[in-house]
Amino acid sequence: MGVIHRFTGNKDKFDWEEVDVQSYNSSEIKGVIKKVLVGPKEGAPYFVLRYFEIEPGGWTSLDEHSHDHGVFILKGEGKVLLGQKEYKVKFGDVVYVSPNEKHQFKNTGNSPFGFICVIPNKELVK
Amino acid sequence: MGVIHRFTGNKDKFDWEEVDVQSYNSSEIKGVIKKVLVGPKEGAPYFVLRYFEIEPGGWTSLDEHSHDHGVFILKGEGKVLLGQKEYKVKFGDVVYVSPNEKHQFKNTGNSPFGFICVIPNKELVK
Repeated sequence: MGVIHRFTGNKDKFDWEEVDVQSYNSSEIKGVIKKVLVGPKEGAPYFVLRYFEIEPGGWTSLDEHSHDHGVFILKGEGKVLLGQKEYKVKFGDVVYVSPNEKHQFKNTGNSPFGFICVIPNKELVK
Repeated sequence: MGVIHRFTGNKDKFDWEEVDVQSYNSSEIKGVIKKVLVGPKEGAPYFVLRYFEIEPGGWTSLDEHSHDHGVFILKGEGKVLLGQKEYKVKFGDVVYVSPNEKHQFKNTGNSPFGFICVIPNKELVK
């Protein structure tokens, strides 16, 4: 059965009904939260749709793995490392991170940097 | 290798570099365009990330199929039919359409109704 998660936030703070938040802060990932909007809890068998938000000065971990990412920037300003090169991104930009491509997202602005990030269900990944 | 599709639009008109548009108008689907942001052209093996826009008064076809949808509303106002029930949706709302669930999107406002819609690569669907 379908699910609707109502947006309960505003332009500064993105929140949804019945969506949990996970926070990440370590030597490898700084000032990052994740909200799983569609995934196992919704019964989705093939993909996971997540919202990430990085605080000013924060970054995601430097990653390289067999699954890919489909990213849509929703707010703020940041940089994405793809392989050896960094690119500036802002609202509406779409980033595709290929399987096994080194990548990292950084907030380079003064406000939260938020984006949607799709991954496959990892059980399907070759 | 990764891909970036720069957003070249504005708040009223959503456009991206190097993304084609498909238009749909028939007795079954009215005033709908689709832009594939991440998919086969980008080399994505597991999922497809599309942008849909429905003009005022338009609707998508009444569908029911074995793949699911992860939807994030980006602009405008609309209704989604899930099974037998219709729900109003607007910016930020997240809709999960389960496999084999009847569904349809309609623009109920006076401006374009736009949303991201994720599907699995259909070759993976059981």
